[in-house]
Amino acid sequence: MYIVPEKEIAALVTRQDSFDAVEKVFASMAAKTAYNFPVIREAIGHADALYGFKSGFDRQALNLGLKSGGYWPGNMAKGLTNHQSTVFLFDADTGKCNAVVGGNLLTALRTAAAAAVSVAHLARKDARVLGIVGAGHQATFQLRAVAEQRNFERVVAWNRSPEKLANLAAVAKELGLPFQSVSLEELGAQADVIVTIISSHEAVLKDIHVKPGTHIACMGTDTKGKQEVEAALVARATVFTDEIAQSVTIGECQHAVAAGTLAQADIAELGAVINGNHAGRSNDDEVTLFDGTGVGLQDLAVASAAVELAVLKGVAIEVAF
Amino acid sequence: MYIVPEKEIAALVTRQDSFDAVEKVFASMAAKTAYNFPVIREAIGHADALYGFKSGFDRQALNLGLKSGGYWPGNMAKGLTNHQSTVFLFDADTGKCNAVVGGNLLTALRTAAAAAVSVAHLARKDARVLGIVGAGHQATFQLRAVAEQRNFERVVAWNRSPEKLANLAAVAKELGLPFQSVSLEELGAQADVIVTIISSHEAVLKDIHVKPGTHIACMGTDTKGKQEVEAALVARATVFTDEIAQSVTIGECQHAVAAGTLAQADIAELGAVINGNHAGRSNDDEVTLFDGTGVGLQDLAVASAAVELAVLKGVAIEVAF
Repeated sequence: MYIVPEKEIAALVTRQDSFDAVEKVFASMAAKTAYNFPVIREAIGHADALYGFKSGFDRQALNLGLKSGGYWPGNMAKGLTNHQSTVFLFDADTGKCNAVVGGNLLTALRTAAAAAVSVAHLARKDARVLGIVGAGHQATFQLRAVAEQRNFERVVAWNRSPEKLANLAAVAKELGLPFQSVSLEELGAQADVIVTIISSHEAVLKDIHVKPGTHIACMGTDTKGKQEVEAALVARATVFTDEIAQSVTIGECQHAVAAGTLAQADIAELGAVINGNHAGRSNDDEVTLFDGTGVGLQDLAVASAAVELAVLKGVAIEVAF
Repeated sequence: MYIVPEKEIAALVTRQDSFDAVEKVFASMAAKTAYNFPVIREAIGHADALYGFKSGFDRQALNLGLKSGGYWPGNMAKGLTNHQSTVFLFDADTGKCNAVVGGNLLTALRTAAAAAVSVAHLARKDARVLGIVGAGHQATFQLRAVAEQRNFERVVAWNRSPEKLANLAAVAKELGLPFQSVSLEELGAQADVIVTIISSHEAVLKDIHVKPGTHIACMGTDTKGKQEVEAALVARATVFTDEIAQSVTIGECQHAVAAGTLAQADIAELGAVINGNHAGRSNDDEVTLFDGTGVGLQDLAVASAAVELAVLKGVAIEVAF
């Protein structure tokens, strides 16, 4: 059994590794050679924690296992990340556990990679302005990953507390991209690609804000009741997702489906575009929207890449188990 | 993070350790301070394998985590056990994974311990004849664990292929107990305690076989459609279980409930007897039946004991994770 500690991940797994792993597993999901098992999520009644599992099996990559962990709101005060997770990989041929991998940074990388894959396959090739809605820790990962997918010339961003945009501004500067804090109206009028990455229970980005031709990646909604963008915007857009079942229940699409303005049959898998079974964007005026709900198979895919790289570089700890 | 490899378990965890851990967690379940999360079980479409998770949280013992693994029918040909499992324990205060424990032998020990706990709390004190139905690998664990709970004078056993009873006979000899291969009629007429541990889809032990005063531990039914004893026997008995929700859906009680001869409200938790909230056996003629379905919390309980003992004895492998 290989152990890949959390502290090793940053030096092992690049954004490109994450992109490749996530693109491949989305394709496998759409080809029906990979599927996610039901998600377990429990408020355990201790330390205000939410604990659970995301799991699945990719028959093409032979990735089997789960990510387990959750949200411990008191961790920050202890000098730990509130979100804690560990990925466990199993040998698909024997059922033996063959790897334990720190899952905190990997979760951030795979979530950013999903948005990046959607931009690579759905945004206009001539996209020049990147808009970010949100300024949390994950927003910086989204910015880095998405910025690489087109020849962006500048970044505009909105956050409820604009002063928190300093982190994003610093990353944009590092990437050599001019950065501006703007209103939602300005953001929608200027951005060719928008990533929303907030934890909200009501729509922030409205249909009227968004100009024709925009690609939007909604990355913050993964729970019943959460919402980032107006349902009318989802209804107007051509909608893609990682997993349709999650999209209509806990993803951004839940609201348009509930409003009756979007049918489940109208939602396509991003993997179908990757596989060439869906044309993706059909013209330059179309609004495309990716509902990134986050699936266990993404975690297995990046963790599997991490193990391979860790073994290659000699930093995997091997334990006779 | 501690790693306790499979090969260390045999020298670490005794039957008494397993008994204590299982008794304690059954009590915690009945006190509503411990609960199991939904079970995931998937036929993954590769290597004919069944893969999944059993998981839960015991707020009293602060045991949080899961057992993952499954059934790989081709393993035997590779020199491996068909049932493969690993237990992962998490720090309930932070969500960090703090132990990875080999789960194969622990599963056998915790299953045997459940039957032993039921015998300790429900069988007549003057029980003298122990009956075993089944002769598989797990049957030997049941025999060893249950034999310690009363002053048994002899063992009678039945198996569809009586020649396979040699393993059980050897264990009985080792325990200094006379052993006899018998018919089901003889077994029921003689045994004061019966453990059934077979994988069957139709009732083997019938109501008419069993004499008054017997305690029966049904340990082999953990799936919809499986059955060890006649539903009429379940209806006649005073019924106890580890977890009522599992008992009526995938346990031995599923059939009597489906037949309408047993109500869910008639089933008591064994933990309630341990806690003193249920009197248990009320007289010497009562037939008591324990439906042992197997819950994730048992796995966490014995794995936690294994980690504690491994640390104490210096065989836990500590990894900076």
